[in-house]
Amino acid sequence: MKEESKAEIINRLRSVAGHVNGIARMVDEDKYCIDVIHQIQAVQAALNKISLKVLDDHMHTCVIEAIEGEDLEERERVLSEIRDVFEVRGKL
Amino acid sequence: MKEESKAEIINRLRSVAGHVNGIARMVDEDKYCIDVIHQIQAVQAALNKISLKVLDDHMHTCVIEAIEGEDLEERERVLSEIRDVFEVRGKL
Amino acid sequence: MKEESKAEIINRLRSVAGHVNGIARMVDEDKYCIDVIHQIQAVQAALNKISLKVLDDHMHTCVIEAIEGEDLEERERVLSEIRDVFEVRGKL
Amino acid sequence: MKEESKAEIINRLRSVAGHVNGIARMVDEDKYCIDVIHQIQAVQAALNKISLKVLDDHMHTCVIEAIEGEDLEERERVLSEIRDVFEVRGKL
Repeated sequence: MKEESKAEIINRLRSVAGHVNGIARMVDEDKYCIDVIHQIQAVQAALNKISLKVLDDHMHTCVIEAIEGEDLEERERVLSEIRDVFEVRGKL
Repeated sequence: MKEESKAEIINRLRSVAGHVNGIARMVDEDKYCIDVIHQIQAVQAALNKISLKVLDDHMHTCVIEAIEGEDLEERERVLSEIRDVFEVRGKL
Repeated sequence: MKEESKAEIINRLRSVAGHVNGIARMVDEDKYCIDVIHQIQAVQAALNKISLKVLDDHMHTCVIEAIEGEDLEERERVLSEIRDVFEVRGKL
Repeated sequence: MKEESKAEIINRLRSVAGHVNGIARMVDEDKYCIDVIHQIQAVQAALNKISLKVLDDHMHTCVIEAIEGEDLEERERVLSEIRDVFEVRGKL
């Protein structure tokens, strides 16, 4: 991963962790359930964006490398990983 | 929310926050992108379960109360909130 | 379900079925895979809206009835159905 | 797309279209709302599998071709399409 992307992704993940701790505090302070759910959904949307960015970076580095390489098994492995990520996403 | 549910939900949220900080460390240590994405997806699955539990508790308390009450506007408000939660979920 | 809602939902479902048959034709005519996927995703978005409308109608009829009724088991059943719908949605 | 995959995908799409028309009949016959929603969710799960198969085929043909090719713009286009599919999926 490029250093720039890396720093951005780390920052966004730490901000998500802070957000989730904030939701724990909301629950502790008996905030309204629906507001708690909305905040959880906001976190899920943020995580969607982060994993999209990681995937995008991955395709522009490892996937291109693997397909350019001569190792056909490696190429197959890399493509099936993308497929798996998409499959799991369909179950979230 | 019942005290028991509250404690469990807070614990689970704190555990998710810890998991997300762990993912930030994985990125920092240049772990493989696909493993990072799998961990993000695991967090999203955990958040799905937490919001389901909050929703379930909410229906067994506020929703029942509102529908039993005589305030028709309040009842409408509560049902439309459930609808909204379901709608946003459809966009995640 | 109100007759008006019923007619609208039936129309929308038939239109979705037509859309899906159209996608089958696209595949038969060797249209570009990504365009096929986009059309499938459009159908999924349409189905989200339809199930949201069915759920909304359901809450304004059966759920209200069950909660107003005196049968506590029935009430529990109805709420757990909403929960299940939400849970399955989280796996799609 | 390979002829074999093509035939299978067309069959599955036609079966989904039949399923959706069946759901329209369920609504017409006043079947229970929650059963209708479960059937819609079953269709959505089937569509997830179909689009996964289309994506998988696409990666093993067009994506490999584009990355092996020398046209850098084409390569970029193909990867950004995969990204878009993943992004839209995150909003369904």
